[in-house]
Amino acid sequence: MTRPRAPRQGNSNPRRSALVDAGLSLIREVALEEVDAVAVAERAGVSKALVYYYFPTHRDLQVAVVRTAADGLLEAVRTDPSQAPAEQLAAALDAGIAFIEQYPQAYRALSRGAAFSPQLLEVFEFARDGVVATLAAGLGIGHPNPAERICLRGWLALVEEAVLHWIVSGAPVPRAELVAFCRDVGLSILASPLARSATGAAAAAS
Amino acid sequence: MTRPRAPRQGNSNPRRSALVDAGLSLIREVALEEVDAVAVAERAGVSKALVYYYFPTHRDLQVAVVRTAADGLLEAVRTDPSQAPAEQLAAALDAGIAFIEQYPQAYRALSRGAAFSPQLLEVFEFARDGVVATLAAGLGIGHPNPAERICLRGWLALVEEAVLHWIVSGAPVPRAELVAFCRDVGLSILASPLARSATGAAAAAS
Repeated sequence: MTRPRAPRQGNSNPRRSALVDAGLSLIREVALEEVDAVAVAERAGVSKALVYYYFPTHRDLQVAVVRTAADGLLEAVRTDPSQAPAEQLAAALDAGIAFIEQYPQAYRALSRGAAFSPQLLEVFEFARDGVVATLAAGLGIGHPNPAERICLRGWLALVEEAVLHWIVSGAPVPRAELVAFCRDVGLSILASPLARSATGAAAAAS
Repeated sequence: MTRPRAPRQGNSNPRRSALVDAGLSLIREVALEEVDAVAVAERAGVSKALVYYYFPTHRDLQVAVVRTAADGLLEAVRTDPSQAPAEQLAAALDAGIAFIEQYPQAYRALSRGAAFSPQLLEVFEFARDGVVATLAAGLGIGHPNPAERICLRGWLALVEEAVLHWIVSGAPVPRAELVAFCRDVGLSILASPLARSATGAAAAAS
């Protein structure tokens, strides 16, 4: 707790970035709990001491990996505001599904493992809110009210789970059917009484 | 790894059960990672040695807590097969939401934290499949095909997230509106082209 914290800051440090990259590479194969100094040092081909210099604890390392992955997801689902809302939604959905498809084990470890620890949860909640904000902007909602937020968060969880289960189970469902399913559920949710409820609108206006 | 494993088995052992109950009580207040021998011994008013006797590692303890909570969820959503499918769905939804409402922090720790570790994930996946099987039976689907399974798993994730976000955010949405939202999304998902696709039906028949 009394160690100097300075060296750990600064995402632009290339040696630190290389360690985070090694952690991201590991998370494609193992659970988040197995991302530790020993495994990262081995993967990056550096000493454990160097890993400890930048990340005094395993949790510091795991938080950095989760944060970088979350930034990647936010970047992936960022859409072109000049497009029509429906096109933006389709583009974000396609990019989001492609992101999950690329590293399904990693995505599951992050989206369904982060609540193990308050620090990890904080990073993941921030990312989730960021995705909801991006989606809302794409849909022309701007600042979603509390009811719309519930709908969007629920939809995001459905997309994650449907895509992860599709991949992990090897279900013989064409990708296009899955994408259409996610899109249609999203559209029907946004047209639901809850999303359009006066409760939500009144709360947002207050 | 060479410790005798016998004493740890048997859910009917009252001393072991008391320790799991202490863990379940803790998980209402803290993250899963904080459920360890020290905290459980303090909560149960016993020695750390006794906790270690039944649970040699923190992870053994956490797995037992997650398993007991999962059993509780499965018990809660078990419906009456003599009821009509729609009534069973409504009853299961109501019981499931009540379960989450009772201990939202604990539920989030379990449903969004289990993938941190392969052992915890295994227990939680088993429970999730159990809930899907119960829901499918209630809906008269019996043995869901791969496409229906994707739909049901996705819906379950949506309900979890919507209810958790509703509670944690304190959104001013009446409970009845939330329940209706979850029910309607479930019904529309089951009527979706994916759930009724030939792909799923063909795969189930093979």
